[in-house]
Amino acid sequence: MSEFFEVVTPKEAINKLLSEKNFPEMISEKINTVDSNGRILNQDIKSEVNLPHFNRSSMDGYAIYANDSNGVSLSSPNYLEIIEEIKMGDVPKQKIIPGKTSRIFTGGMIPEGSTAVIMEEDTEELGNNMIEIKKPVATGENIIFSGEETKKGNIIIKKGIKIRSQEIGSLLESGLTKIFVSKKPIIGVLSSGDELIPPSKKLELGKIRDINTYTISNLIKNSGCIAKIFPILPDDLNSQLNQTKKALEFCDMLIFSAGSSISYRDTTAEVINSLDKPGVIVHGISVKPGKPTILGLSGKKPIIGLPGNPVSSIMIFINIVKPILDKLNNYIGTITNQIDCKLTQDISSQTGREDYVQVSMKTHNQKILATPIFGKSNLINTLVNSDGFITIPPESGGLYKNSLVKVKTYE
Amino acid sequence: MSEFFEVVTPKEAINKLLSEKNFPEMISEKINTVDSNGRILNQDIKSEVNLPHFNRSSMDGYAIYANDSNGVSLSSPNYLEIIEEIKMGDVPKQKIIPGKTSRIFTGGMIPEGSTAVIMEEDTEELGNNMIEIKKPVATGENIIFSGEETKKGNIIIKKGIKIRSQEIGSLLESGLTKIFVSKKPIIGVLSSGDELIPPSKKLELGKIRDINTYTISNLIKNSGCIAKIFPILPDDLNSQLNQTKKALEFCDMLIFSAGSSISYRDTTAEVINSLDKPGVIVHGISVKPGKPTILGLSGKKPIIGLPGNPVSSIMIFINIVKPILDKLNNYIGTITNQIDCKLTQDISSQTGREDYVQVSMKTHNQKILATPIFGKSNLINTLVNSDGFITIPPESGGLYKNSLVKVKTYE
Repeated sequence: MSEFFEVVTPKEAINKLLSEKNFPEMISEKINTVDSNGRILNQDIKSEVNLPHFNRSSMDGYAIYANDSNGVSLSSPNYLEIIEEIKMGDVPKQKIIPGKTSRIFTGGMIPEGSTAVIMEEDTEELGNNMIEIKKPVATGENIIFSGEETKKGNIIIKKGIKIRSQEIGSLLESGLTKIFVSKKPIIGVLSSGDELIPPSKKLELGKIRDINTYTISNLIKNSGCIAKIFPILPDDLNSQLNQTKKALEFCDMLIFSAGSSISYRDTTAEVINSLDKPGVIVHGISVKPGKPTILGLSGKKPIIGLPGNPVSSIMIFINIVKPILDKLNNYIGTITNQIDCKLTQDISSQTGREDYVQVSMKTHNQKILATPIFGKSNLINTLVNSDGFITIPPESGGLYKNSLVKVKTYE
Repeated sequence: MSEFFEVVTPKEAINKLLSEKNFPEMISEKINTVDSNGRILNQDIKSEVNLPHFNRSSMDGYAIYANDSNGVSLSSPNYLEIIEEIKMGDVPKQKIIPGKTSRIFTGGMIPEGSTAVIMEEDTEELGNNMIEIKKPVATGENIIFSGEETKKGNIIIKKGIKIRSQEIGSLLESGLTKIFVSKKPIIGVLSSGDELIPPSKKLELGKIRDINTYTISNLIKNSGCIAKIFPILPDDLNSQLNQTKKALEFCDMLIFSAGSSISYRDTTAEVINSLDKPGVIVHGISVKPGKPTILGLSGKKPIIGLPGNPVSSIMIFINIVKPILDKLNNYIGTITNQIDCKLTQDISSQTGREDYVQVSMKTHNQKILATPIFGKSNLINTLVNSDGFITIPPESGGLYKNSLVKVKTYE
């Protein structure tokens, strides 16, 4: 039997591709801030103004000259005259001097001369525009100062982050209604196999429905990219090569499903090596499931060969392809969401190989228990029945029952 | 000073609204499976066929009569004659009998009479259509049996789950190209305040840009719902009531921003109580930030009053509104993504109140450290600078430095 390919660890595989000098970077496009959720910011955002742009009250109460409250108490209050009422949106007309105060509401603009706001609860209205103040307040108390949120010229949001609701709010607060984000990469999906039929077709003996095209496209969309689906490729090198060349014209990157192993019909590596240099960079990754995976580059366009097995292709997408798409998008990444669980069974693993083990999770006595999902690894329903997966690193020979494990969810 | 409202815990508040007999449930709509990512499945999915629908090989190798391998070894192999080659998609023509074998590839259909597949690696081609087999295989080895993935009539996916890539794959594998999901609820967003101007407008003294409309709309979209934005409401009860009645015609639920406290202009509760019964159900939640929150119901349409403070409104959305939207969507939920971290500082909290404390996360010596974000709680940039938040439950008086905490990310 012919030798399998040389294998590298998942980390090495990703680094090999990302460190190629030809590895591309997406250009920017300008979009509306309100439509930017989940996009990757492609500029540093500096504040163009001080925010807030005036001193504001953070309470309903009275704007006073802080020293007027020195030493006051319940038994020895001080008395002030109300000279104005300041609602949100009003510009105060009166200046505060000792002995005078203005009624002010949350968000209202602090009048000139006022150095603190005393909360409504610590005062008493006496009628005749007089109030009693019964508690000392420090200078600056209950005031949000101009520029306290952001000073003009400061970086408020860094290039490379993924935009969430709060970034949209912060950008709009600064009046930035348009921003530069990474243009969404267009990823071509090409599944191959003479046995594949579209999911809408009736099954014939020997045929199977093409599902990888759709699971992979969905994962591509969830990674902030655009999926472009091409027709199913036949098991024929020349047709594959022609269709691949056409697909490359429309796409920033291609993902093949099936054809990455070493069987008679596994022609993905040959196709990639027939395109522009450098061609295949990694063929085979020491991982389970998903060993027969290819990473390559044609000119400045990355090309991935995923195994045809639906479970392998999803697990390799999440663990190998996703970080590649993040780099392409200029995303600087963040700490991965993972849930600490207690393992309910031993899991054995082969040293030198990274294993992804599907688990279901269940809360029991305030702990979360993770139970490995059994079943043949190429059945998609092992993924349907699982809430997430555990990664067993290459240096580990397995995990013991009751050990603490980190479970990642799928998307 | 007038009494604040009576307050309940976040859990009690949510339960009070959800247990109302008028609390609605979204109807179903039929959509394409390929477009169903993130939608809530609104039917149990039963398999209409056995899957796989024929016995398949899980390896490249030879389909044999398993007993032909009994007792064989490297030193005492057995010899079989190749009578056919079966690729993926082929229907085998020849029956396997003792002494005969067919070459078979991964996914290929197992021929009649064959009871196991021997891996290519455990055989040797001898020429003249003969092979040597050098290792015993058990009956059923390397075969995926028809119905092993799913038996006809079995429930493969349960009503109420959120559809991921693997569910799309599994549905398509069964030929289900259309499915019933919960119709997306339409949530109206109404911000109020005379001081608010649209984000595109130049700031005038005393005015602030309306950002809550957009942060809340974005959170609504991320929760699988449709956000419908209405014009900014003035601080005037009659106008608010008229505009609210119009909005209710178009929406399944309304969310107000600002107006939920007890200040002169906090009219949301009054508006809600002027609509259909039961009106305001909860006014005030023992939580920080976000105490002045209203939950109500007009007929069968939930109405939420969020605080105007942008940080409070986001935190209340995530912790109180999101579970309400999930229920409206018929989503049965799952275990929340949360990251176990070590706290770098003490945090004090008031017993009887649930606190949400923003933190940044940093990896250090293979541990993730969570550091509370300081700054006034109504500044949106405390959320921009944070990776997630810790929930300090009502029964806790605070958390000590170095304790283990669970951090939730925002979306």
